[in-house]
Amino acid sequence: MDQRISAVTLGVADVNRARGFYERLGWAPSKGSDDKAAFFQMNGLALMLYSMKELAKDAGVERPGMGFDNVTISYNVPSQAEVKQVLAKAKKAGGTILRDAAQQFWGGFSGYFADPDGHAWEVAFNPHWKIDAKGNVKIPK
Amino acid sequence: MDQRISAVTLGVADVNRARGFYERLGWAPSKGSDDKAAFFQMNGLALMLYSMKELAKDAGVERPGMGFDNVTISYNVPSQAEVKQVLAKAKKAGGTILRDAAQQFWGGFSGYFADPDGHAWEVAFNPHWKIDAKGNVKIPK
Repeated sequence: MDQRISAVTLGVADVNRARGFYERLGWAPSKGSDDKAAFFQMNGLALMLYSMKELAKDAGVERPGMGFDNVTISYNVPSQAEVKQVLAKAKKAGGTILRDAAQQFWGGFSGYFADPDGHAWEVAFNPHWKIDAKGNVKIPK
Repeated sequence: MDQRISAVTLGVADVNRARGFYERLGWAPSKGSDDKAAFFQMNGLALMLYSMKELAKDAGVERPGMGFDNVTISYNVPSQAEVKQVLAKAKKAGGTILRDAAQQFWGGFSGYFADPDGHAWEVAFNPHWKIDAKGNVKIPK
Protein backbone atom coordinates (compact mmCIF):
# COMPACT_ATOMS: atom_id res chain seq x y z
CA MET A 1 0.00 0.00 0.00
CA ASP A 2 1.33 3.42 -0.95
CA GLN A 3 1.40 5.99 1.80
CA ARG A 4 -1.51 8.06 0.62
CA ILE A 5 -5.04 9.15 1.41
CA SER A 6 -7.52 9.64 -1.41
CA ALA A 7 -10.34 11.35 0.42
CA VAL A 8 -11.63 12.47 3.75
CA THR A 9 -15.36 12.21 4.23
CA LEU A 10 -17.29 14.11 6.82
CA GLY A 11 -20.63 12.74 7.90
CA VAL A 12 -23.02 15.67 8.13
CA ALA A 13 -26.60 16.24 9.23
CA ASP A 14 -27.46 18.36 6.18
CA VAL A 15 -25.22 18.39 3.10
CA ASN A 16 -26.44 21.80 1.93
CA ARG A 17 -25.83 23.39 5.30
CA ALA A 18 -22.34 21.90 5.52
CA ARG A 19 -21.59 22.78 1.90
CA GLY A 20 -22.58 26.37 2.56
CA PHE A 21 -20.06 26.54 5.36
CA TYR A 22 -17.18 25.32 3.21
CA GLU A 23 -18.24 27.55 0.34
CA ARG A 24 -18.05 30.45 2.76
CA LEU A 25 -14.46 29.50 3.44
CA GLY A 26 -13.89 30.16 -0.24
CA TRP A 27 -13.98 26.57 -1.47
CA ALA A 28 -15.74 25.53 -4.67
CA PRO A 29 -17.50 22.18 -4.87
CA SER A 30 -17.26 20.14 -8.05
CA LYS A 31 -20.11 20.30 -10.53
CA GLY A 32 -21.03 16.75 -9.59
CA SER A 33 -22.09 17.93 -6.14
CA ASP A 34 -25.76 17.92 -5.18
CA ASP A 35 -27.85 17.96 -2.02
CA LYS A 36 -26.88 14.39 -1.21
CA ALA A 37 -23.11 14.70 -1.53
CA ALA A 38 -20.58 17.45 -2.05
CA PHE A 39 -17.07 17.01 -3.42
CA PHE A 40 -14.11 19.33 -3.14
CA GLN A 41 -10.84 18.86 -5.04
CA MET A 42 -8.06 19.14 -2.47
CA ASN A 43 -4.30 18.70 -2.89
CA GLY A 44 -4.34 15.39 -4.60
CA LEU A 45 -7.24 14.11 -2.56
CA ALA A 46 -10.92 14.82 -2.14
CA LEU A 47 -12.96 16.20 0.69
CA MET A 48 -16.51 14.90 0.67
CA LEU A 49 -19.61 15.81 2.60
CA TYR A 50 -22.17 13.08 2.97
CA SER A 51 -25.16 12.27 5.16
CA MET A 52 -23.82 10.97 8.47
CA LYS A 53 -26.55 8.34 8.52
CA GLU A 54 -25.71 7.15 4.99
CA LEU A 55 -22.00 7.34 5.66
CA ALA A 56 -22.30 5.10 8.69
CA LYS A 57 -24.49 2.73 6.71
CA ASP A 58 -21.99 2.70 3.83
CA ALA A 59 -19.22 1.81 6.25
CA GLY A 60 -21.23 -1.00 7.77
CA VAL A 61 -21.69 0.83 11.04
CA GLU A 62 -25.12 0.86 12.59
CA ARG A 63 -25.25 4.41 13.84
CA PRO A 64 -22.99 7.46 13.86
CA GLY A 65 -21.64 8.56 17.21
CA MET A 66 -22.33 12.00 18.58
CA GLY A 67 -19.93 14.59 19.96
CA PHE A 68 -16.24 14.59 19.19
CA ASP A 69 -15.62 12.21 16.33
CA ASN A 70 -12.13 11.16 17.33
CA VAL A 71 -10.59 12.38 14.09
CA THR A 72 -9.22 15.81 13.32
CA ILE A 73 -8.10 17.31 10.06
CA SER A 74 -5.32 19.82 9.92
CA TYR A 75 -4.95 22.89 7.78
CA ASN A 76 -1.40 24.17 8.02
CA VAL A 77 -0.31 27.71 7.18
CA PRO A 78 3.13 29.32 6.99
CA SER A 79 2.75 31.86 9.81
CA GLN A 80 1.15 32.51 13.19
CA ALA A 81 -0.73 35.46 11.75
CA GLU A 82 -2.43 33.22 9.22
CA VAL A 83 -3.54 30.82 11.95
CA LYS A 84 -5.52 33.67 13.48
CA GLN A 85 -6.83 34.80 10.09
CA VAL A 86 -8.12 31.35 9.19
CA LEU A 87 -9.77 30.86 12.58
CA ALA A 88 -11.45 34.25 12.23
CA LYS A 89 -12.66 33.34 8.76
CA ALA A 90 -13.99 30.00 10.00
CA LYS A 91 -15.86 31.71 12.82
CA LYS A 92 -17.32 34.22 10.39
CA ALA A 93 -18.38 31.35 8.12
CA GLY A 94 -20.45 29.83 10.92
CA GLY A 95 -17.85 27.67 12.63
CA THR A 96 -17.29 27.43 16.36
CA ILE A 97 -13.91 28.13 17.91
CA LEU A 98 -13.04 25.09 20.01
CA ARG A 99 -9.69 26.42 21.17
CA ASP A 100 -8.19 29.83 20.52
CA ALA A 101 -4.87 30.05 18.71
CA ALA A 102 -1.97 29.69 21.12
CA GLN A 103 1.67 28.70 21.34
CA GLN A 104 2.01 24.91 21.65
CA PHE A 105 4.46 22.77 23.59
CA TRP A 106 5.69 21.18 20.34
CA GLY A 107 6.93 24.51 19.01
CA GLY A 108 4.00 25.47 16.86
CA PHE A 109 1.07 27.82 17.07
CA SER A 110 -2.42 26.47 16.58
CA GLY A 111 -6.11 26.63 17.32
CA TYR A 112 -9.20 24.60 16.50
CA PHE A 113 -12.57 25.33 15.00
CA ALA A 114 -15.54 23.03 14.56
CA ASP A 115 -17.68 22.98 11.46
CA PRO A 116 -21.46 22.99 11.89
CA ASP A 117 -21.48 19.28 12.65
CA GLY A 118 -18.75 19.48 15.25
CA HIS A 119 -15.92 18.19 13.05
CA ALA A 120 -12.72 19.52 14.54
CA TRP A 121 -10.27 21.30 12.24
CA GLU A 122 -6.86 22.26 13.54
CA VAL A 123 -5.34 25.39 12.03
CA ALA A 124 -1.61 25.25 12.63
CA PHE A 125 1.68 26.96 12.02
CA ASN A 126 4.25 24.21 12.39
CA PRO A 127 7.83 25.46 12.01
CA HIS A 128 9.04 21.85 11.68
CA TRP A 129 7.02 21.14 8.56
CA LYS A 130 7.72 22.52 5.13
CA ILE A 131 4.80 23.56 2.97
CA ASP A 132 5.71 23.62 -0.73
CA ALA A 133 4.34 25.91 -3.41
CA LYS A 134 1.59 23.41 -4.11
CA GLY A 135 0.41 23.39 -0.51
CA ASN A 136 1.74 19.92 0.17
CA VAL A 137 3.37 19.37 3.53
CA LYS A 138 6.68 17.66 4.07
CA ILE A 139 7.15 16.24 7.50
CA PRO A 140 10.66 15.58 8.91
CA LYS A 141 12.04 12.20 7.87
CA MET B 1 -8.17 29.30 2.04
CA ASP B 2 -6.65 26.92 -0.49
CA GLN B 3 -8.49 23.66 -1.05
CA ARG B 4 -6.13 21.40 0.79
CA ILE B 5 -5.72 19.18 3.82
CA SER B 6 -2.38 18.99 5.57
CA ALA B 7 -2.93 16.06 7.89
CA VAL B 8 -5.42 13.56 9.15
CA THR B 9 -5.05 12.60 12.78
CA LEU B 10 -6.50 9.47 14.28
CA GLY B 11 -7.08 9.43 18.01
CA VAL B 12 -5.94 6.04 19.28
CA ALA B 13 -5.94 4.17 22.58
CA ASP B 14 -2.31 3.04 22.24
CA VAL B 15 0.03 4.69 19.72
CA ASN B 16 2.36 1.69 19.55
CA ARG B 17 -0.47 -0.72 18.89
CA ALA B 18 -1.93 1.52 16.17
CA ARG B 19 1.51 2.15 14.69
CA GLY B 20 2.12 -1.58 14.48
CA PHE B 21 -1.04 -1.99 12.46
CA TYR B 22 -0.05 0.62 9.89
CA GLU B 23 3.48 -0.69 9.74
CA ARG B 24 2.00 -4.06 8.91
CA LEU B 25 0.25 -2.43 5.98
CA GLY B 26 3.73 -1.63 4.72
CA TRP B 27 3.88 1.99 5.85
CA ALA B 28 6.99 3.51 7.41
CA PRO B 29 6.65 6.11 10.15
CA SER B 30 9.00 9.09 10.19
CA LYS B 31 12.03 8.98 12.46
CA GLY B 32 10.40 11.61 14.64
CA SER B 33 7.75 9.10 15.69
CA ASP B 34 7.72 7.77 19.26
CA ASP B 35 5.28 6.08 21.62
CA LYS B 36 3.32 9.29 22.03
CA ALA B 37 2.81 10.15 18.38
CA ALA B 38 3.47 8.56 15.01
CA PHE B 39 3.78 10.40 11.69
CA PHE B 40 3.46 9.02 8.20
CA GLN B 41 4.33 10.98 5.06
CA MET B 42 1.36 10.65 2.74
CA ASN B 43 0.72 12.22 -0.69
CA GLY B 44 1.45 15.78 0.24
CA LEU B 45 -0.12 15.43 3.65
CA ALA B 46 0.54 13.62 6.89
CA LEU B 47 -1.23 10.87 8.71
CA MET B 48 -0.74 11.06 12.45
CA LEU B 49 -1.55 8.72 15.29
CA TYR B 50 -2.04 10.35 18.65
CA SER B 51 -3.59 9.52 22.01
CA MET B 52 -7.35 9.94 21.68
CA LYS B 53 -7.47 11.54 25.11
CA GLU B 54 -4.71 14.01 24.24
CA LEU B 55 -6.16 14.66 20.82
CA ALA B 56 -9.53 15.58 22.28
CA LYS B 57 -7.82 17.77 24.85
CA ASP B 58 -5.73 19.45 22.15
CA ALA B 59 -8.89 20.21 20.19
CA GLY B 60 -10.60 21.67 23.23
CA VAL B 61 -13.05 18.79 23.47
CA GLU B 62 -13.69 17.25 26.87
CA ARG B 63 -13.82 13.59 25.95
CA PRO B 64 -13.55 11.48 22.82
CA GLY B 65 -16.67 9.70 21.64
CA MET B 66 -16.82 5.97 21.30
CA GLY B 67 -17.95 3.83 18.38
CA PHE B 68 -18.10 5.15 14.85
CA ASP B 69 -16.24 8.41 14.70
CA ASN B 70 -18.29 9.97 11.95
CA VAL B 71 -15.33 10.40 9.63
CA THR B 72 -13.98 7.95 7.10
CA ILE B 73 -10.78 8.03 5.12
CA SER B 74 -10.62 6.60 1.65
CA TYR B 75 -7.86 4.67 -0.02
CA ASN B 76 -8.57 4.43 -3.74
CA VAL B 77 -7.07 1.83 -6.05
CA PRO B 78 -7.25 1.39 -9.84
CA SER B 79 -9.09 -1.94 -9.96
CA GLN B 80 -11.68 -4.11 -8.22
CA ALA B 81 -9.07 -6.80 -7.67
CA GLU B 82 -6.93 -4.40 -5.68
CA VAL B 83 -9.88 -3.48 -3.45
CA LYS B 84 -10.03 -7.10 -2.36
CA GLN B 85 -6.26 -7.33 -2.00
CA VAL B 86 -6.06 -4.29 0.25
CA LEU B 87 -8.98 -5.46 2.40
CA ALA B 88 -7.32 -8.85 2.78
CA LYS B 89 -4.06 -7.22 3.72
CA ALA B 90 -5.80 -5.00 6.27
CA LYS B 91 -7.51 -7.99 7.82
CA LYS B 92 -4.22 -9.83 8.00
CA ALA B 93 -2.64 -6.81 9.65
CA GLY B 94 -5.19 -6.95 12.46
CA GLY B 95 -8.00 -4.86 11.03
CA THR B 96 -11.67 -5.74 11.10
CA ILE B 97 -13.74 -5.96 7.94
CA LEU B 98 -16.73 -3.68 8.44
CA ARG B 99 -18.23 -4.32 5.04
CA ASP B 100 -17.05 -6.76 2.39
CA ALA B 101 -16.10 -5.43 -1.02
CA ALA B 102 -19.13 -5.11 -3.27
CA GLN B 103 -20.46 -3.27 -6.28
CA GLN B 104 -21.87 0.12 -5.28
CA PHE B 105 -24.85 2.09 -6.57
CA TRP B 106 -22.54 4.96 -7.63
CA GLY B 107 -20.69 2.73 -10.07
CA GLY B 108 -17.72 1.77 -7.99
CA PHE B 109 -16.58 -1.23 -6.03
CA SER B 110 -15.67 -0.82 -2.38
CA GLY B 111 -15.43 -2.22 1.11
CA TYR B 112 -14.49 -1.00 4.54
CA PHE B 113 -12.10 -2.09 7.23
CA ALA B 114 -11.61 -0.70 10.72
CA ASP B 115 -8.23 -0.21 12.30
CA PRO B 116 -7.75 -1.42 15.88
CA ASP B 117 -9.47 1.66 17.25
CA GLY B 118 -12.47 1.37 15.01
CA HIS B 119 -11.45 4.05 12.50
CA ALA B 120 -13.23 3.25 9.28
CA TRP B 121 -11.19 3.11 6.07
CA GLU B 122 -12.94 2.76 2.75
CA VAL B 123 -11.04 0.87 0.07
CA ALA B 124 -12.51 1.84 -3.26
CA PHE B 125 -12.26 1.42 -6.99
CA ASN B 126 -13.96 4.48 -8.41
CA PRO B 127 -14.12 4.49 -12.22
CA HIS B 128 -15.10 8.18 -12.17
CA TRP B 129 -11.92 9.32 -10.48
CA LYS B 130 -8.48 9.42 -12.07
CA ILE B 131 -5.50 8.39 -10.00
CA ASP B 132 -2.26 9.85 -11.36
CA ALA B 133 1.20 8.31 -11.21
CA LYS B 134 1.81 10.05 -7.89
CA GLY B 135 -1.28 8.51 -6.31
CA ASN B 136 -3.18 11.78 -6.29
CA VAL B 137 -6.85 11.58 -7.15
CA LYS B 138 -8.61 13.86 -9.59
CA ILE B 139 -12.32 14.14 -9.08
CA PRO B 140 -14.64 15.21 -11.91
CA LYS B 141 -14.94 19.00 -12.18
